[in-house]
Amino acid sequence: MQISPLLESLISALRCLPGVGPKSAQRMAYHLLQRNRQAGLHLAHELNEAMNNIGHCKACRTFTEQEICTICANVRRQSSDQLCVVESPADIFAIEQTGQYSGRYFVLLGHLSPLDGIGPSDIGLDLLKSRLASESIHEVILATNPTVEGDATANYIAQMCNEFNIVATRIAHGVPVGGELEMVDGTTLSHSFVGRQKIDF
Amino acid sequence: MQISPLLESLISALRCLPGVGPKSAQRMAYHLLQRNRQAGLHLAHELNEAMNNIGHCKACRTFTEQEICTICANVRRQSSDQLCVVESPADIFAIEQTGQYSGRYFVLLGHLSPLDGIGPSDIGLDLLKSRLASESIHEVILATNPTVEGDATANYIAQMCNEFNIVATRIAHGVPVGGELEMVDGTTLSHSFVGRQKIDF
Repeated sequence: MQISPLLESLISALRCLPGVGPKSAQRMAYHLLQRNRQAGLHLAHELNEAMNNIGHCKACRTFTEQEICTICANVRRQSSDQLCVVESPADIFAIEQTGQYSGRYFVLLGHLSPLDGIGPSDIGLDLLKSRLASESIHEVILATNPTVEGDATANYIAQMCNEFNIVATRIAHGVPVGGELEMVDGTTLSHSFVGRQKIDF
Repeated sequence: MQISPLLESLISALRCLPGVGPKSAQRMAYHLLQRNRQAGLHLAHELNEAMNNIGHCKACRTFTEQEICTICANVRRQSSDQLCVVESPADIFAIEQTGQYSGRYFVLLGHLSPLDGIGPSDIGLDLLKSRLASESIHEVILATNPTVEGDATANYIAQMCNEFNIVATRIAHGVPVGGELEMVDGTTLSHSFVGRQKIDF
């Protein structure tokens, strides 16, 4: 196989993107070279800017190029007494798109995982503790992933909240909206029974 | 929605890649920031290098950063009397991977399409003509796509070859290997009947 070395290294570099295998990478490289070199250069510039300048918010640990992210800097959000704890910055994006929540966030950037050597300080729980102690927070909403590690992390943080007499809540687990009962797995279904709510008239 | 402006522009820049929608672009951006900033910077560098330095081979018009691509510069290939005409550089990649062909190539970078105003000179047929006139070529293999435009382009080039008394051949159309007859469309099946070959013992 004899192709241009530069093209070959572009194709292999594109494979760092998640979900991009050799065929997609090849298609992307040829597409950019043949149809849209300007967009390729623009992408290179944006990648450089983002990788070099985006750091973590000092208050909530999400991605931002400033000291404090736009959500933490928002005055209306600062006056909220709710704090939502999530595992990754992408979760904030998903929650914000629902328009359901208007409080502050805290990003763990991971979850507790003793087997991998990830303890409380690795997921910023010391910072969270100091925020719980110093800020006026009434409720901590634990929106970690519904996995064993996510649940364990949520429990750990709930205990921490208890020390400061702060209410800790966990997001509901149950049947996804629009799904069919017979297609839902047993664990989810049993969660939806345990978490059943009274219908008020 | 309040996310970092730099992150937002990275996500929108990633959408220039073929097959990448808003969700994939978001996943890619978060993945690079969270797990692999080095790979992101490397990708930016490779994109810049490739977009700025890759041009077209003077002989066959494929992508290369040199004057003449590695295939055209190969002495063994130069002594071959076959020339394969393809629509895009990616086609060369596909043909090379079969290991079936060891001649030279010519890349049209498109196909004849009078409705879109794409005539013979736009797909480099003047350069091809001068190569047919000056080089010792015995056979031109027309490997354009099996579409209406690809077929029309192949016919046009076949007529050109005829002027120079060069044999023009078209790659076989037929049932794909490993496919099932009942799943093959009618046009392909009729092509496979027209192009049937005698079995020699």
